[in-house]
Amino acid sequence: MKGERDKVKEDIIIFHPLPFTLYPLPFTCKLVMEISSLGEFGLIKHLTEKIEIKNGSTLKGVGDDAAVLSYKDKEALVTTDLLLEGIHFDLTYVPLKHLGYKSAVVNFSDIYAMNGQPKQITVSLGISKRFSVEDLEDFYEGLLLACQIYGVDLVGGDTSSSLTGFCISITCIGEANKDRIVYRNKAQNTDLIFVSGDLGAAYMGLQLMEREKAVFAGEKDFTPDFAGKEYLLERQLKPEARKDIVHALDENGILPTSMIDISDGLSSELLHICTQSGVGCQIYEERIPIDYQTALMAEQFNMNLTTVALNGGEDYELLFTVPLGLHEKMETIEGVKLIGHICEASEGTRLIARDGTEIPLTAQGWNALS
Amino acid sequence: MKGERDKVKEDIIIFHPLPFTLYPLPFTCKLVMEISSLGEFGLIKHLTEKIEIKNGSTLKGVGDDAAVLSYKDKEALVTTDLLLEGIHFDLTYVPLKHLGYKSAVVNFSDIYAMNGQPKQITVSLGISKRFSVEDLEDFYEGLLLACQIYGVDLVGGDTSSSLTGFCISITCIGEANKDRIVYRNKAQNTDLIFVSGDLGAAYMGLQLMEREKAVFAGEKDFTPDFAGKEYLLERQLKPEARKDIVHALDENGILPTSMIDISDGLSSELLHICTQSGVGCQIYEERIPIDYQTALMAEQFNMNLTTVALNGGEDYELLFTVPLGLHEKMETIEGVKLIGHICEASEGTRLIARDGTEIPLTAQGWNALS
Repeated sequence: MKGERDKVKEDIIIFHPLPFTLYPLPFTCKLVMEISSLGEFGLIKHLTEKIEIKNGSTLKGVGDDAAVLSYKDKEALVTTDLLLEGIHFDLTYVPLKHLGYKSAVVNFSDIYAMNGQPKQITVSLGISKRFSVEDLEDFYEGLLLACQIYGVDLVGGDTSSSLTGFCISITCIGEANKDRIVYRNKAQNTDLIFVSGDLGAAYMGLQLMEREKAVFAGEKDFTPDFAGKEYLLERQLKPEARKDIVHALDENGILPTSMIDISDGLSSELLHICTQSGVGCQIYEERIPIDYQTALMAEQFNMNLTTVALNGGEDYELLFTVPLGLHEKMETIEGVKLIGHICEASEGTRLIARDGTEIPLTAQGWNALS
Repeated sequence: MKGERDKVKEDIIIFHPLPFTLYPLPFTCKLVMEISSLGEFGLIKHLTEKIEIKNGSTLKGVGDDAAVLSYKDKEALVTTDLLLEGIHFDLTYVPLKHLGYKSAVVNFSDIYAMNGQPKQITVSLGISKRFSVEDLEDFYEGLLLACQIYGVDLVGGDTSSSLTGFCISITCIGEANKDRIVYRNKAQNTDLIFVSGDLGAAYMGLQLMEREKAVFAGEKDFTPDFAGKEYLLERQLKPEARKDIVHALDENGILPTSMIDISDGLSSELLHICTQSGVGCQIYEERIPIDYQTALMAEQFNMNLTTVALNGGEDYELLFTVPLGLHEKMETIEGVKLIGHICEASEGTRLIARDGTEIPLTAQGWNALS
């Protein structure tokens, strides 16, 4: 199935690359409601009035100066992400529902990376002048779908107009038992290094959409060519947080010594763990998990596949270390792969290539400040 | 004392209206460091490495996927504010140190408005391309000064470049005892309505700076005329949250029935309390607290003073209701003024003018979506 062009608001979304759509897409003509017709308070009410509180720790959600949360039994985890139009997303090909979903999920991923459970989010939006009420409904639909799937309450936020692009700031609060929290700084010499899922696909999905956007420029009847590349698009547009891995580890009584989620690329994240833990590492190129669609696409784009997998970013997979003694137990966990081991800091941070060459790892990952 | 022009970076700050400056202003020439020379992780480290944790509830601050907080004894309060260049502030006349200070304080104000104590903030910044490392140092200096004064820990955030303007998203976490939290929806018939400080000054400060900006346009040797108007500038550029009022009420054993902070104007906030509590109100024009500088400035600008005080916004004063029986006890609290009382919803929400006329209150306050 091919993507379809949006017939209604060509200034916002040019085409929908959605062979994997979760939602019925509202491509039929619809009345467009001006945001100013509702006003700030009316808009917030309109978008949040259907929210039902799911967690016992949420005592009071949207509607006062602050939300009230109860974290008496556990520790509270807090993380925040800022997503800016033109830097983190391009509304030419990112549908607002997917953007809402992804904005929430990338925050949940940070909480899982601490071995916690996300419970609440606050959502602040700077709204582009060209948005209608329906656009925000789309965004909220994706956002609330993610909240529903992951069991999270939307408890507050701030809404403003933006003179320029769309601006999304989400803060997520989660919970964890103090003795189960996994930091970045406790990896030990001889620990095994594991990664969940596969890497590089989200980055190739981005490259693919950027190519179609460039091809599209100026054309009137354009159908982007996404057949057979659904996985790459899904990884870029609708990533999932690895709640399943956190649960599987817990059920099997495995507590990682360190953990981080992969947002800036495997290489960069592994360096964070090594630096903060004061250790080195050795990972094997042949062990890095890569999907065949990622490999095909990298070949088409004439890109080095290992570089894509090491530095692509936005994978939202979990990278973690476990003591060597848990090797056998780890073999029962599905969806994770052993890629190397921790060593002394003096041995450096190295990738062992297929031909046996040793290459120092560098954090050339995605840099939102470059 | 007059404001001074910035000799270094005229594209960012045209003049400093700072007769009340807290900080030595770095107007002498200094080396300007490019942000890209540090990179994202280097920049975050540079800006946050001096942070010392002040609160027992902060178990882990900056440096992992999420901060870890302990709220075992009390409830956690969460609030968030988004500040966008061109909408909420104008860097022509707002110094970055003051902006940092204000960005933190407006969040603290929301926590005090729940009768809580702010304890942690996360700070996400979308950084304008024209900023240097020193600009961010200025911003952080103001931010951390506010944190120091109010006893708050900076525990995390996100940093990105912004294609357009400067974008600030702050989330504040605070604490309160469950039975001491004050909501907006518990005002009762016959309750007395109090407001702290005075109103309208921040709005007149904004008008004043906007006027000087317009006068300045194009002039080479410009000195803005701020003599005798320091209070208005201070209220706009460096507001304080009313921690003192919350403490005074607590010390005197007074628990308000409802409370809100005034960010969108007295009228708008009072309507929130009345709507959510299902009551009406009657306030008296002659009782609304207004500073003489505000009155003088309103006259100069030919503005209706009561409208300015009711709808100006950004006062960050506390508006609250207490039971009628606490009338005498309230007289011992300094810095608050009785402005009216709560009545039945059927009696409406009214302002009694000096001449006895009854005027319905409307929320024509500052609307960031208009």
